[in-house]
Amino acid sequence: MTANPATPLLDTVDTPRDLRQLRPAQLRQLADELRAETISAVGQTGGHLGSGLGVVELTVAIHYVFDTPADRLIWDVGHQAYPHKILTGRRDRIRTLRQSGGLSGFTKRSESEYDPFGAAHSSTSISAALGFATAAKLRDEPGRGIAVIGDGAMSAGMAYEAMNNAKQAGNRLIVILNDNDMSIAPPVGGLSAYLAQLVSSRPFLNIREFARKLSRRLPEPLHRAAKKTDEFARGMAMGGTLFEELGFYYVGPVDGHNLDQLIPILENVRDAAEGPCLIHVVTQKGKGYAPAEEADDKYHGVQKFNVVTGEQAKAPAGPPSYTGIFAKALIAEAEKDASICAITAAMPSGTGLDKFAQAFPERSFDVGIAEQHAVTFAAGLAAQGMRPFCAIYSTFLQRAFDQVVHDVAIQNLPVRFAIDRAGLVGADGATHAGSFDITYLATLPNLVVMAAADEAELVHMVHTAARYDAGPIAFRYPRGNGTGVELPETPELLEIGKGRIVREGSKVALLSLGTRLSEAMKAADTLEAKGLSATVADLRFAKPLDTALIRKLMLSHDVIVTIEEGAIGGLGAHVLTMASDEGLTDSGLKIRTMRLPDVFQDQDKPEVQYDAAGLNAPQIVDTVLKALRHNSAGVSEARA
Amino acid sequence: MTANPATPLLDTVDTPRDLRQLRPAQLRQLADELRAETISAVGQTGGHLGSGLGVVELTVAIHYVFDTPADRLIWDVGHQAYPHKILTGRRDRIRTLRQSGGLSGFTKRSESEYDPFGAAHSSTSISAALGFATAAKLRDEPGRGIAVIGDGAMSAGMAYEAMNNAKQAGNRLIVILNDNDMSIAPPVGGLSAYLAQLVSSRPFLNIREFARKLSRRLPEPLHRAAKKTDEFARGMAMGGTLFEELGFYYVGPVDGHNLDQLIPILENVRDAAEGPCLIHVVTQKGKGYAPAEEADDKYHGVQKFNVVTGEQAKAPAGPPSYTGIFAKALIAEAEKDASICAITAAMPSGTGLDKFAQAFPERSFDVGIAEQHAVTFAAGLAAQGMRPFCAIYSTFLQRAFDQVVHDVAIQNLPVRFAIDRAGLVGADGATHAGSFDITYLATLPNLVVMAAADEAELVHMVHTAARYDAGPIAFRYPRGNGTGVELPETPELLEIGKGRIVREGSKVALLSLGTRLSEAMKAADTLEAKGLSATVADLRFAKPLDTALIRKLMLSHDVIVTIEEGAIGGLGAHVLTMASDEGLTDSGLKIRTMRLPDVFQDQDKPEVQYDAAGLNAPQIVDTVLKALRHNSAGVSEARA
Repeated sequence: MTANPATPLLDTVDTPRDLRQLRPAQLRQLADELRAETISAVGQTGGHLGSGLGVVELTVAIHYVFDTPADRLIWDVGHQAYPHKILTGRRDRIRTLRQSGGLSGFTKRSESEYDPFGAAHSSTSISAALGFATAAKLRDEPGRGIAVIGDGAMSAGMAYEAMNNAKQAGNRLIVILNDNDMSIAPPVGGLSAYLAQLVSSRPFLNIREFARKLSRRLPEPLHRAAKKTDEFARGMAMGGTLFEELGFYYVGPVDGHNLDQLIPILENVRDAAEGPCLIHVVTQKGKGYAPAEEADDKYHGVQKFNVVTGEQAKAPAGPPSYTGIFAKALIAEAEKDASICAITAAMPSGTGLDKFAQAFPERSFDVGIAEQHAVTFAAGLAAQGMRPFCAIYSTFLQRAFDQVVHDVAIQNLPVRFAIDRAGLVGADGATHAGSFDITYLATLPNLVVMAAADEAELVHMVHTAARYDAGPIAFRYPRGNGTGVELPETPELLEIGKGRIVREGSKVALLSLGTRLSEAMKAADTLEAKGLSATVADLRFAKPLDTALIRKLMLSHDVIVTIEEGAIGGLGAHVLTMASDEGLTDSGLKIRTMRLPDVFQDQDKPEVQYDAAGLNAPQIVDTVLKALRHNSAGVSEARA
Repeated sequence: MTANPATPLLDTVDTPRDLRQLRPAQLRQLADELRAETISAVGQTGGHLGSGLGVVELTVAIHYVFDTPADRLIWDVGHQAYPHKILTGRRDRIRTLRQSGGLSGFTKRSESEYDPFGAAHSSTSISAALGFATAAKLRDEPGRGIAVIGDGAMSAGMAYEAMNNAKQAGNRLIVILNDNDMSIAPPVGGLSAYLAQLVSSRPFLNIREFARKLSRRLPEPLHRAAKKTDEFARGMAMGGTLFEELGFYYVGPVDGHNLDQLIPILENVRDAAEGPCLIHVVTQKGKGYAPAEEADDKYHGVQKFNVVTGEQAKAPAGPPSYTGIFAKALIAEAEKDASICAITAAMPSGTGLDKFAQAFPERSFDVGIAEQHAVTFAAGLAAQGMRPFCAIYSTFLQRAFDQVVHDVAIQNLPVRFAIDRAGLVGADGATHAGSFDITYLATLPNLVVMAAADEAELVHMVHTAARYDAGPIAFRYPRGNGTGVELPETPELLEIGKGRIVREGSKVALLSLGTRLSEAMKAADTLEAKGLSATVADLRFAKPLDTALIRKLMLSHDVIVTIEEGAIGGLGAHVLTMASDEGLTDSGLKIRTMRLPDVFQDQDKPEVQYDAAGLNAPQIVDTVLKALRHNSAGVSEARA
């Protein structure tokens, strides 16, 4: 491990209150030390690096100029907030980032009063800042809402909805557009091209010019009035920037690494703005750390690394990832079928679709952070006879729920949903957990919902989805590596709504959906050793249920246990509902459902998370034994 | 009933193919007849009137100029598509609009090949059109995607996400912005102000000037090249319109009622565009029908009316609506509590918040069609100590599902969700049904989910939500009139997670959530008459469940039936899950769950819909009797 860097000035700063005691001339040194400390910490923990390095100066400048935490500072997504955490009383825990019991990799209200709004999903910051600003205004209290949002996050509709409402907050709303021209993937779309043009066509704001312009209108009421109909009113006039057209006062572009510019500009906005301001700051992701600057995509999220060489620890070796296998399987399908196309919402590498795009650039669509559009665009493609695969993480598909209902399910259009990161996800914690998709998809008419038990099953499901034109179909699979099973040479066409028996037994039946199958198999071994013969079924489908199989197992076993990597309302609920619809529960059958607990689980190693969730083999065994021990005689008696 | 108008020319037009045989000079007459027919039809059926009248000329012009249905025409929302339906082979059924078995009040794929994409929720059209255009391009087939979208719908993030991706479709994408400056409610936000400014600052497009500009660049390749870097490239240059900044070629504003302008402009765009075009058309809602022009808000959605006088049939008399009672109750709370504020997403009168806005203008927020922003903005307000009520229809809250999860539930912020239009909604059909909210909300940790059994209960729930600061809380209530029960003088503070026994019995327990309670009571009477003593409970809470009450009833009754106005995964699933968790199902208890069926139900009268759904009193009785008759002996035997 590399020694921690020397940071004499940073050592004197525990909170922004200390920071604001420094002289402006000291801030450069502080930023340098903050950068070194950030690199050192992430070198030890892994996590998001490039985005934090890009906003070191911005972090220092904002806390220096604004009255945090009274002024509410909201980092969009929050993965760039490590330097912010270091400056806001959390330096002592910065080397616990994303670890069990440690600091979150995002902002989090419970961590600090300096995190007034938690984040992790993109593009929420302006809405939240507007809420803070409006509340302060309503109560006639001091305080602003300050949102720092990346150019990539600006492609989401939610950011636009918020900008469209910005005027209501007056000068209490400040949006800092952190334009680093590189979110997780290269930015896409009209807005991105526009920002690039904006930056290249205008010199960085000349601070003297800017200050003169602003200060001129400060003293005299007359100047103010003139300005209102003149400069500031530009916001509503023709020919302003897009942001001015939505009602902002646009300031920029500004060099986001130059504190001598940044600080006076922020001060001027703080003191002189008369309406919502958008400050367009240009930064470089990975700034100040050569390995991250040079290969900024590789340094978005990193493993632990050697600070001197930049060499990242190897990810633990193992079978190929589900993501990689999905991509490979989809490419194989697309080679045989020209109607297959693929859509990602700003996650080409996260979903594996970067590989698909290399193979089929014209059939590959990265729509930016725009899940809503992604789904309805896919519906349009499907309505025209294409076979679109929409690859979106479980947690992000929540953003497009209405589009799944209204544009896909009601119209019964064959959009294929490849749902990556289903179940618990480890270090990213509660905000990224894919806990709800079984529930929110299986409740919809027309949907087919599958979950892969292993990577071979995933290959079958990609194939099955490709061939299924009767309506929408979804398949979910987890983050991380496969189980190492052999992959099929030729994928199998699964029969819709049919599960499979993986192990035959007689007393206990474990109905698994998804990758808990291996735990169910382990549990069956343990049960067998205790003399309890156990059947294990992989249901494959949460919808339609394999009612014939389930009925048969219910009629021939004493205990039925369902196991899924999802919250209440999913597989277990559907199995119970089917059983009670058919009167199968009337006969004293013992049914139990194992699911994610009714809490938002913090980050940890996935296996620890699943243990906490009670979804590992020992807990499956316990559930069975407890059910067998449960004496319903008293219950029956009480009722009789 | 008024006689149908004389429409000699319209009588010769069954489909757009006929329309395209007409001479341009005949189109004015056709439009006049189409307008008269639309007024006459809606006079008989009720429905959306003003928006259709505003696009009569546009409808004629689009079908005249473009090659529908090969060119895919998508009406955003679809409530303005009645004239389109008349022109596309559905005139013989136009007087069945929104009736049982009749035409949908929106566009619908199953109705006509001229409806390539169904709609009803706002702002989906550009994404879908982009899907069509892209598919045609991929297959090298002719065909464009043409989206007609209102200015109000442009405030939704989804429209922006789609515009940001428009360039990929090239000239195959045409967006017609139908700017009538009045969606359901007066438009709000920066975009709306911007559009108004755009229209007022520019004269209507001079068609000769426009044609010259476009045709000049047609013949010679050189002109084309010059244009590319010049005029067309304006899209990416500074100082264009907002739409140009996102990558469109902007054309407008155009007088949407002047066919002599509209047709050549559409023809020019059709023939000469080299990239995605946005045509900014200005129309008047209600155009050509004086009562609708004068009071256009009253004519957005109408009852049957007298065409001559404009007088609308009175809505059936009855108790006050749930919506009205919600608004009154919230105003009463807000009078005592300055921290209460209210948020609507472009539905001030639909949610009753127009009344709240009159009483408390500064605490009332209409954010436009922007449910995502509405929820996260509310979360920001709540984080700052305000008590926000977010009033959003069940079906529209789907748009903000991720914001409910990520910004509200994970952070456990006390946002109050007032969920109107829960359950089946009648004439608006499947797209507007509020079927899924119990399922998608009750699966989330931290949520409290209530449903009002009648309007007195609703008053209690508003009060309870106002006083509940421990986390998010939602209460749902149906469209339409209350049951007529007396309203409480002082609202009651409900205990969280506690239901109530409404009727005591011993053999059968009916567990109701929501307004099926009255049907459950009727069913209990019938059962009693058959000698089956029935308990009826109003559970009030889907989450947290009143486990003590449910356990007690399960232990003391032979049959348990849950009843809810929601799809699978909701109350019934939660009750079954709790029962199986506790082993209460092990004892031969008969549990049945009654819920919405697993289909999207078409429009009809609500009572007919509920009968089709199997949720009326006779079906409750049937369910009980069938459960009692069900012999599980065979089942037990098969298992033994």
